[in-house]
Amino acid sequence: MTRRRPRGNTGHRGCFDNAAVRGLRTEWIGFNLIPMNGNAYGRPPQYPNSLLTQVGPGTPCGELMRRYWQPVGLSRQLTDLPQKVRVLGEELVLFRDRSGRPGLLYPRCMHRGTSLFYGRVEGAGLRCCYHGWLFDVEGQCLDQPCEPDGGRHRDSVRQPWYPVQERYGFVFAYLGPPQKMPVLPRYDNLESLAPGETLWCSLGGFGSTGDDSLAVVPYSWLHMNDNVMDPFHVQVLHSTFSVVQFVPQFALMPKVDFFYADHGVCYSAIRKLDDGQEVDRISSWLMPNIMSVPDVTLRAGHSAGIAWVVPVDDSHYVQAMVSKIPAGVTFRGMLLNGKTWGEMTEAEHQRTPGDYEAQAGQGPISLHSEEHLVTSDRGIMMQRRLLLQQLEVVAKGGDPVGVVFDADKALVKVRSGNFYRAAQAAG
Amino acid sequence: MTRRRPRGNTGHRGCFDNAAVRGLRTEWIGFNLIPMNGNAYGRPPQYPNSLLTQVGPGTPCGELMRRYWQPVGLSRQLTDLPQKVRVLGEELVLFRDRSGRPGLLYPRCMHRGTSLFYGRVEGAGLRCCYHGWLFDVEGQCLDQPCEPDGGRHRDSVRQPWYPVQERYGFVFAYLGPPQKMPVLPRYDNLESLAPGETLWCSLGGFGSTGDDSLAVVPYSWLHMNDNVMDPFHVQVLHSTFSVVQFVPQFALMPKVDFFYADHGVCYSAIRKLDDGQEVDRISSWLMPNIMSVPDVTLRAGHSAGIAWVVPVDDSHYVQAMVSKIPAGVTFRGMLLNGKTWGEMTEAEHQRTPGDYEAQAGQGPISLHSEEHLVTSDRGIMMQRRLLLQQLEVVAKGGDPVGVVFDADKALVKVRSGNFYRAAQAAG
Amino acid sequence: MTRRRPRGNTGHRGCFDNAAVRGLRTEWIGFNLIPMNGNAYGRPPQYPNSLLTQVGPGTPCGELMRRYWQPVGLSRQLTDLPQKVRVLGEELVLFRDRSGRPGLLYPRCMHRGTSLFYGRVEGAGLRCCYHGWLFDVEGQCLDQPCEPDGGRHRDSVRQPWYPVQERYGFVFAYLGPPQKMPVLPRYDNLESLAPGETLWCSLGGFGSTGDDSLAVVPYSWLHMNDNVMDPFHVQVLHSTFSVVQFVPQFALMPKVDFFYADHGVCYSAIRKLDDGQEVDRISSWLMPNIMSVPDVTLRAGHSAGIAWVVPVDDSHYVQAMVSKIPAGVTFRGMLLNGKTWGEMTEAEHQRTPGDYEAQAGQGPISLHSEEHLVTSDRGIMMQRRLLLQQLEVVAKGGDPVGVVFDADKALVKVRSGNFYRAAQAAG
Repeated sequence: MTRRRPRGNTGHRGCFDNAAVRGLRTEWIGFNLIPMNGNAYGRPPQYPNSLLTQVGPGTPCGELMRRYWQPVGLSRQLTDLPQKVRVLGEELVLFRDRSGRPGLLYPRCMHRGTSLFYGRVEGAGLRCCYHGWLFDVEGQCLDQPCEPDGGRHRDSVRQPWYPVQERYGFVFAYLGPPQKMPVLPRYDNLESLAPGETLWCSLGGFGSTGDDSLAVVPYSWLHMNDNVMDPFHVQVLHSTFSVVQFVPQFALMPKVDFFYADHGVCYSAIRKLDDGQEVDRISSWLMPNIMSVPDVTLRAGHSAGIAWVVPVDDSHYVQAMVSKIPAGVTFRGMLLNGKTWGEMTEAEHQRTPGDYEAQAGQGPISLHSEEHLVTSDRGIMMQRRLLLQQLEVVAKGGDPVGVVFDADKALVKVRSGNFYRAAQAAG
Repeated sequence: MTRRRPRGNTGHRGCFDNAAVRGLRTEWIGFNLIPMNGNAYGRPPQYPNSLLTQVGPGTPCGELMRRYWQPVGLSRQLTDLPQKVRVLGEELVLFRDRSGRPGLLYPRCMHRGTSLFYGRVEGAGLRCCYHGWLFDVEGQCLDQPCEPDGGRHRDSVRQPWYPVQERYGFVFAYLGPPQKMPVLPRYDNLESLAPGETLWCSLGGFGSTGDDSLAVVPYSWLHMNDNVMDPFHVQVLHSTFSVVQFVPQFALMPKVDFFYADHGVCYSAIRKLDDGQEVDRISSWLMPNIMSVPDVTLRAGHSAGIAWVVPVDDSHYVQAMVSKIPAGVTFRGMLLNGKTWGEMTEAEHQRTPGDYEAQAGQGPISLHSEEHLVTSDRGIMMQRRLLLQQLEVVAKGGDPVGVVFDADKALVKVRSGNFYRAAQAAG
Repeated sequence: MTRRRPRGNTGHRGCFDNAAVRGLRTEWIGFNLIPMNGNAYGRPPQYPNSLLTQVGPGTPCGELMRRYWQPVGLSRQLTDLPQKVRVLGEELVLFRDRSGRPGLLYPRCMHRGTSLFYGRVEGAGLRCCYHGWLFDVEGQCLDQPCEPDGGRHRDSVRQPWYPVQERYGFVFAYLGPPQKMPVLPRYDNLESLAPGETLWCSLGGFGSTGDDSLAVVPYSWLHMNDNVMDPFHVQVLHSTFSVVQFVPQFALMPKVDFFYADHGVCYSAIRKLDDGQEVDRISSWLMPNIMSVPDVTLRAGHSAGIAWVVPVDDSHYVQAMVSKIPAGVTFRGMLLNGKTWGEMTEAEHQRTPGDYEAQAGQGPISLHSEEHLVTSDRGIMMQRRLLLQQLEVVAKGGDPVGVVFDADKALVKVRSGNFYRAAQAAG
């Protein structure tokens, strides 16, 4: 396995040195002085790392996110009615014209501000309900029916719009500067479906709760992003804290290595099983909010899925998940004590907490200044370090890692998976 | 028909010239520079025209509104319990003492701040529940039962109050400076009821939704005010966009003229009908928030009604509507596909949007800086221009148009209506 | 009865002179100039007395409150699940470890911020669900299972915690500076239970609504605190305004005296009864938020109860009430017209307002600048004066009245009660 370093285009390289990162205690990860007896009185105010949590237009992380295509809708749900989309702090309207083209527009009609959510989908675009201005998927105004000649100056105005593309069951949007628009990547593990195989797609809170209770998850995208390079919580939260949420083997504390690879960070978590085998579970995180988690039942082989943690705003996200599933398989959610997450009471959530409780428990936005990161948090430190470095690359006009402008180079090789082999001697 | 110019008392006249207004593009109606391809990235922040949307005490528009009597309650509902009133950003309590006099008081008892909403209506006024201070409709303190001699100094305090009058089924209040209090106007089309005729009154969201779902409408008064001098949306929103909401004849695009008249703005919208007749639909808007819309079934004759768009606060309003109705007629709301507005789902509202969707779609307060007003918006430009000019009149100490201090001159002639005649040759 | 003056430790004495306080009109009790006719137009903005209503860390009143033990939970409810506590503007987690010790911790796990509300109660403490860090009731970190050797540096971190003690059915917490921690007081009227006697405990809104509808009361603690030294509202609100809420004798207007005593303020309210007797109802308020109200049925004898008005934040509080009840007695709430408070409609609350309506009617936080305090408000003036004086004592580093560091002096004698005697001649 190559320990390849991802690389920004402006030449910042030092931070990719794994050894240097291992002992990282950057200034923004505050270690507070604790009074002798730890009494809570008089503790200083704490604060989030806003560089990583603010995602609106013009914020460093928001601009970083805007350099990548982000999934904003499910293709199968985009039929004859416009949809409200909130992404990276922006309100937008997503629609598909009757000729089949998806479009993503600023929702307030440029004429007098009425929401195009109440617009009518037509062959050529979306028509505002109030005075009938008609816009195509690139915001061009095609008709102003209350004006002489359908609007003699209609070409001089344009409804703000964003480019979109469809792939893997999602509508992807590019919200960044037009001259920086990259190619929409392909992922090798989602290509070349076998006969009968289909793609299962979800957009919402499934990855957090294991069911479809939440259309939007009410906390920062960074909580879920941190969670990806955190193999240790699997042993505690999902395996030994209350009930076995995935498989009993996760109760084994793994031997973990973190490394930069695949435009992001990977971990290798090795567990020695009872049968003399060991399983090397490799999980991938790709810049800036993409993950490929191996099968949670420890099924052998490469991961069949990819997911994006798409910020809705600073304190909300949706997760876009897609995975190959074999013919005849139905993907269903998780049950704890026979109940879906949405069916459980708060006391039951207290007794059997999962990812949602652990992450929502960090608050709408965590207070990073009071964290105490330790050796088991090294993956998270590496992710954040890479994000911080790359948002600086973007702020300086460069192109962040993973962004590709040549369609021939836009196939991403995803290495995550559960790999079995004979157990090695302890090293 | 006279093209009379309304006139402020401080001599600002230039803005009333119709020709000058026709091509109006004032600075506050911003036309933004749009990037070459209209991409939504990097668009600048937008903002409301606060001069017209802020209505609280001391704001320019709030002070303009305060120079006119405003309807704040329905007479028939003011019985033995006090009512909460929120108007122009102020919280008040409306009540009727047992001798029949209506009163409008600041709600926090001047003694210790308890809400007079929980007060008891008595013959002489309203008694606070906490310590029994009794106030009359002009805020005079008549009793302090826990004090020696019922309060030896009770004359030195006074509960803040506003003058009220009842007419046409409403309680009107004057919230302006006492020395500027005008006469409560009469409207010729609400006077002299024929035998059996009654006044139908409504206070709430009926004018926006066509039913009684909303006690308060959750967006700026200006959205509905703009809507009044907008005859073109009738052709789109109400007639050709989804279903015919009023009558099929509104699907004809009218020939429209706007002109200043009757202390405000009027439009004349002429439609040539199939039977060789034409109908001239004249609608009136009077300063600052009063309208008289003709019958929406295009019944011939003068309009029988008047309505006020009363700001609750910057982002809410109630509409006070009153109309003569003949004996035996029951006024009922609008049905779309057999449902009232309140019974429809959001998807149904998307399919058959009406005034509520068009206006709520503009947001709680619209962002006027991004509007692109065109020739069909001339009536709205004239309204806003007049409002802006008149709030300056008020700010300079003058009296705005339509305000009358002589009871003999307080009868307003309302010219709106549907007027039929033989079609004229095209001009 | 001694007219003993409570005394701060820094020597401020002048304000305790009853005569001086009687005519008090301090600057912060604003008497506004009222326009000639009291018209509400143009009245100036009003504001709370923030010195008494702000209770967060570092605020003057917050620091005063933090010098006393405050009840934060019911012992009987603290079983196997952690509880969320919000007190004095702080979010905390209360739990009881399996060895029986109660603990109160800052809720965000010091590792990565996950809420300990989702933690697991163990023998030695509370374990975080995310990565299993284990803390004892004093915040010491006992285990970090994902770290080598269970965390080689776990002694260098400590979860912020507060001291707690249990008494009278409550968990009391001390949120102040550790070096200033006083002894948790005892109250003579809660000690020495007779055979069969028990303590009835409540934490929530019972004292405001007379039922268990509200877990938290949504207005400032000061509203309820003011209410305690206000014997006059009993005659109006509870007796003559609508229905008799307690007993008919309260409809007699009492002769009232206020005096400083028992580390706070007392009133004596004397009513001459029809049978030739008079009853002297003595009620006690102790610094800073403690009261002992006599039996509301006017049963003779000392009060059997104590209550704390514990600020949740600036605009919410809970009341902790405890009272001795004889064997076989069931404490039940108040019914008005056969309904509990929670069963009544808003119109019914208007017709029969009680403490909740009178106090909630003052708003989330009252606007003290517009109050007009009169002779019957003298008790409230004395309370506020004492609070203001004592928060200055604290701000200057002194110890406020009622705080005791010697366990032998920590028994508080509570003098409140209903005392009957032959009526005296009018004086």
